[in-house]
Amino acid sequence: MSCAKCSEPAPRRIHRLVVIGVGLIGGSFALDLRRHRQVDEIIGVGRSRANLDVALNRGVIDRIAEDVASVVAEADCILLALPVAAMARVLATIAPALPTHCLVTDVGSTKQDVIAAARTTLGDKIGQFIPAHPIAGAETSGAEAAREHLFDGKALILTPLPENRPEDVTTLTALWQTCGARVTAMAADVHDRVFAAVSHLPHLAAFALVDDLIGRPEAELCFGYAGAGFRDFTRIAASSPEMWRDIALANREALLIELDAYLAKLTEVRALIEHRDGDALHTLFIRASAARRKWQGG
Amino acid sequence: MSCAKCSEPAPRRIHRLVVIGVGLIGGSFALDLRRHRQVDEIIGVGRSRANLDVALNRGVIDRIAEDVASVVAEADCILLALPVAAMARVLATIAPALPTHCLVTDVGSTKQDVIAAARTTLGDKIGQFIPAHPIAGAETSGAEAAREHLFDGKALILTPLPENRPEDVTTLTALWQTCGARVTAMAADVHDRVFAAVSHLPHLAAFALVDDLIGRPEAELCFGYAGAGFRDFTRIAASSPEMWRDIALANREALLIELDAYLAKLTEVRALIEHRDGDALHTLFIRASAARRKWQGG
Repeated sequence: MSCAKCSEPAPRRIHRLVVIGVGLIGGSFALDLRRHRQVDEIIGVGRSRANLDVALNRGVIDRIAEDVASVVAEADCILLALPVAAMARVLATIAPALPTHCLVTDVGSTKQDVIAAARTTLGDKIGQFIPAHPIAGAETSGAEAAREHLFDGKALILTPLPENRPEDVTTLTALWQTCGARVTAMAADVHDRVFAAVSHLPHLAAFALVDDLIGRPEAELCFGYAGAGFRDFTRIAASSPEMWRDIALANREALLIELDAYLAKLTEVRALIEHRDGDALHTLFIRASAARRKWQGG
Repeated sequence: MSCAKCSEPAPRRIHRLVVIGVGLIGGSFALDLRRHRQVDEIIGVGRSRANLDVALNRGVIDRIAEDVASVVAEADCILLALPVAAMARVLATIAPALPTHCLVTDVGSTKQDVIAAARTTLGDKIGQFIPAHPIAGAETSGAEAAREHLFDGKALILTPLPENRPEDVTTLTALWQTCGARVTAMAADVHDRVFAAVSHLPHLAAFALVDDLIGRPEAELCFGYAGAGFRDFTRIAASSPEMWRDIALANREALLIELDAYLAKLTEVRALIEHRDGDALHTLFIRASAARRKWQGG
């Protein structure tokens, strides 16, 4: 069905949504769609029965399915909200029984590897898979952390495939817009480079800084006097170890480039301090400080 | 005068407080002491007349002195709230006319270099100088940023000198406690090592990360999609370039050791990613994440 006015395909109604991985992201997506009555039934699937029970008790999902295979045939939309390394296995389970009309999408923090896994596992059903990434992570996780309005004003990036049906892209865009997200699209390789720089590298740098403190003789004293700067700088070091291991490996090539650039920049700063080059340090700090202030304002 | 009960020296009343550098820290100290009526008059001195006018108009200070030399003789307490590199020059100006009873203190982020500057410039008046460091920085600065309650519950570290008079230490402790600070003491070299690790290194790492983004072809795209993790990780990169240049140089030796340890840790993380060693990455992330969560809880 198309819009009578502009020939843009109209979004399709999703009756039954299957959320695989009912955590912070999958659960919050479900809560917002329920609140706006955009879906009729939400079914949760996951590894942890305890987490699914939390999701059910909090009204995040309507019912629990024992496994993915048992629920694929009745799904209109399947959301994969899993660590990226788990996508291939789950996609392979979905593939055989996937109904032709069913839209499959994900929320993975890396896109090229997930697309590669989807191409391998879905075969000629690849057009049904629309890769996506909501920019709304937090250091909390699990169904307990799911909440309404998480995506309000946040970016949702689609990296659509040439095989995607326009009406599916319209439908998925409408679902995320219902959640308050600003939906944009970009190429998967650009996505992975950009997020290696502004998200994945900072996470590694924060994990590394905290790990660097642990085990030294003055560790307790250090943690005892760490202030607000340390608190904010290392907030993301409390993130899910499993999720970030997967992201680090999935976006390996872009991350190695970013790590090398960052190591070179830190080595440059180290040399300026060693050579007591106050002017050059000042210039670098002025430049970085101005860019950070401008970004915050924007 | 001593306490009749325990022989602990009683705090002395400060009639006239001179604040040199009426910014976030110096101005907030003044506001809290005024609010609690702990001083009779607060005089501001500084490089920027415009900033001093803001301080006067906001009621942070009672009057402006044209220069340090003109006001030293009438001071009971002098607070040096300056970038650490400016301390030596100001201390040299203060030294000749400094009254015997006048307490001098600072709020510098490094202590060994400030103490060395004080010893050189104050000579046999060194006992009047009590080094101090409130852990209450922010990325804002100037008299406009000064506010009441800034130090509530924050740590104030004294690194007292053997020459300090006990009643002066008691008096300064009481002033900071009036501002709500938790006053503790430690050796200056321990202070500088601890803050190199938990404050100075994170600031350099944040400046470096932002500077690493600037100038690349995809910089605008990167800043456009940077999310909450980037926001918190780089908040301190908006800090005063001048102050941080001075700190980097003042705490050079401890910082070079910290930078080397951090570069080694990041190089370790890079090697784990290059060799696709997911288990070792997972172990490191679990360790760091647990330490960060424990710290937040504590």
